[in-house]
Amino acid sequence: MKKVITLKHIARELEVSISTVSKALKNSEEISRDTKERIQAYAKLYNYRPNNIAISLKNKRTKNIGVIIPDIVHHFFTTVVRGIESYANSKGYNVIVCLSDESFDKEVINMEMLANGSIDGFIMSLSVETQLKNDYNHLKEITDQGIPLVMFDRVTDEIKCDKVIINDREGAYLAVKKLIANGRKKIALITTDNYLSIGKQRTEGYCDALRDHGLEVNENLILSLPQMKMDEKAISDFYDREEVDAVLCVHELFAMYSMRVALKKGLKVPEDIEFIGFTDGNLSKYAYPSLTAIAQHGEQMGEMASKMLIEKIESEKEEETYVTEVLQSTLVERESTKN
Amino acid sequence: MKKVITLKHIARELEVSISTVSKALKNSEEISRDTKERIQAYAKLYNYRPNNIAISLKNKRTKNIGVIIPDIVHHFFTTVVRGIESYANSKGYNVIVCLSDESFDKEVINMEMLANGSIDGFIMSLSVETQLKNDYNHLKEITDQGIPLVMFDRVTDEIKCDKVIINDREGAYLAVKKLIANGRKKIALITTDNYLSIGKQRTEGYCDALRDHGLEVNENLILSLPQMKMDEKAISDFYDREEVDAVLCVHELFAMYSMRVALKKGLKVPEDIEFIGFTDGNLSKYAYPSLTAIAQHGEQMGEMASKMLIEKIESEKEEETYVTEVLQSTLVERESTKN
Repeated sequence: MKKVITLKHIARELEVSISTVSKALKNSEEISRDTKERIQAYAKLYNYRPNNIAISLKNKRTKNIGVIIPDIVHHFFTTVVRGIESYANSKGYNVIVCLSDESFDKEVINMEMLANGSIDGFIMSLSVETQLKNDYNHLKEITDQGIPLVMFDRVTDEIKCDKVIINDREGAYLAVKKLIANGRKKIALITTDNYLSIGKQRTEGYCDALRDHGLEVNENLILSLPQMKMDEKAISDFYDREEVDAVLCVHELFAMYSMRVALKKGLKVPEDIEFIGFTDGNLSKYAYPSLTAIAQHGEQMGEMASKMLIEKIESEKEEETYVTEVLQSTLVERESTKN
Repeated sequence: MKKVITLKHIARELEVSISTVSKALKNSEEISRDTKERIQAYAKLYNYRPNNIAISLKNKRTKNIGVIIPDIVHHFFTTVVRGIESYANSKGYNVIVCLSDESFDKEVINMEMLANGSIDGFIMSLSVETQLKNDYNHLKEITDQGIPLVMFDRVTDEIKCDKVIINDREGAYLAVKKLIANGRKKIALITTDNYLSIGKQRTEGYCDALRDHGLEVNENLILSLPQMKMDEKAISDFYDREEVDAVLCVHELFAMYSMRVALKKGLKVPEDIEFIGFTDGNLSKYAYPSLTAIAQHGEQMGEMASKMLIEKIESEKEEETYVTEVLQSTLVERESTKN
C-alpha cells in the first residue's frame, strides 16, 4: 500500500522543524537554498501532495467537524466544545476534538491529520506557541485550499476567515467600574505574562476604567505571575505592601487563589476586600464566598462558531465574505463584591 | 462517488433506533421479524458492510488513537485525556477525542465514525445511557473485528478487553477510616442516584468502613441528590435534621457545595464538621478551607490506558490475553479535615 507522506514525516526524516518544511515547500526566502532543495527533493521523491486535502473535500462531505483547542483541562475551552457539539449535533454533524497542548507543532500535526479528508471544516483557537512564533502558514494552507475555518477566542488578523471573539476589554472595564462604584480606590490587577492578546485587552480595560473615573493607573498595583503558578508568598506580600481593597484577576484560578490568600490572612470578603475574576466556571459558583465573575459565554461562543462553520460548509457561493462576531462579556454578581 | 452507509443512516432512514439496526443486522431475537427483514433488506440494497473497518485496519496504520469520553466539562475525564495524550505523543501517536454526552446513540455514532479507518484503536469510558441500556453490541463489534480497545473507569464485564479502573471502594473506605480516627461518629454520605457501578462501590466502601470500626450504617445519614443538581435547601435541612459531624461526597462539586452550605450556616470547618470529596481537582486545591480529597489519578489512568492500547496495536501476537489494571486511590489531606 502506498504510504501517505505528511509534513511531519518529512520534518522527522530530514531533522528539521515542521515550520521549516512548510516554508521550504512554499519556497520561502526565510529558508536557506540548500535546505529548501533538500526538502523539495524529498517531497518530490515521495510524492508529497499538499492538495490531496482539497481534492478529497470537493468530492464528498464527511459531516464531521474538526476542533483544535490549546488545552483540555480548562473550563472555558471545554464549555466552547460543548457549545460546538450541541449546535453541530442538531444539524447532523459529528465533532472530532484534537489538542495542541499550546504547542505549534502539535497544532500543525493535528490540523494536517484531520484535513486529510476526515472533516468538512475546522474550528480552532491558537496555541500560545503559535502566537509567539507568529507563524500561520498551516492556517493559510487550509484557507487557500477552500476548507472552511472559524477561529475563536485566540485569533489573528493574519488569517482571513470567520471569527468569534469576546469583548475582553469591555469585560475588564465593567468589572473595574463596578468596584469603583462600590467605593474602592486601590484596585489591583492580578495577571500573567503569557496571556498575549487577551491579557493585553483585559489590562487595557482595567486601565481605561480607572482613568475614565479619575483614578490613576499605579503600576505597583499590577501583579504579574508566571502562567498558572499559584504563588502564596507573592500574593501575600503584595497585599502587605499595597493595602489593596479590590482585585480583578484575569483567570478564575487566580481569583479563587488570591481570595483564598486574603481569607487566610483574616481579611473579610467583601467587607475588607472585593474580588472579581474572569471566566464564570464552577469554582466561581461554588466557592464561599461565591465569586463575582465576568462571564465569557463559552457555550454561546461554541454554538456561534459551529453555526458559522456549518453555513460556510453548506454554502454554494464561490465569493466568500468573512465576519467577526464579538460577544459581549457580562458581569455575574455574587458574594465576593458588595451589591 | 459511492456513498458509505452507516448504522446511523439506516436508523434515520427507517425511523428506528441505532440499537435496533445493530441488533437486526445480527439477527437478534429481540427484534420483530418484520423489522429485521426491512432493515436487512435496506442494508443489502445499499451494500452496508460492517467489516470494512477490519479490512482497512489490516492494511495500514494510522498512528491515531480514538478516545470516547462521556463528558468534556468534567475535570476527571479531561485529566485522563491529558494522560492519554502525553503517553501517546511520546510514542508518535495522535489522539482524536469524541464525546458521547452520556448518550448511547452518540457513543455508537462516534465509534462507528472513527472505526472507519481513521484510528488504530480505542480508549473509552461508557456513557450513563449505555450502562442503563446494558447494550454493548457496538463494543462487541469493535473487538470481534480485532480492533484493540481499552476501557477505563466506567467499564463492563460484558466486553473482553484491557481495562483500567480505580479502586473506588478502597477510596471511600480510606476516607471514612480517616474521619473515624478523627473521632467523628455521625458521618454522612452525599451521593447521587445516577452514579451506577462507581456510586455503588463508593457506598460499599463507606458502609464497610463504618461496620469494620463498630459504627452502624444509618440510612438517614445517606443523602442522595439528583445528578449534578446543587440543592441548598435539601443539604441545609439535612444538616439541621441529622447533626452530621463529617461528610463524604462522591463528587468534588458536591463536596465544595455542601461545605459552602455548612460555612453559610456558621459551622466551622474542620472544627464542627469535616469534609472529604472524591476526585482531587482544582476546586479542592483552591477552596478555602481547601478540601481533603480522594485522588482518582486521572492522568496516570490515561497514561496506563494509552500504554496498554499501543502495546496491543503494535503486538504481533494472534492469541490475545486481557488484563484489568486497578489503580489505588489515595487520600490527599488538606484543611477540611483535622490532621
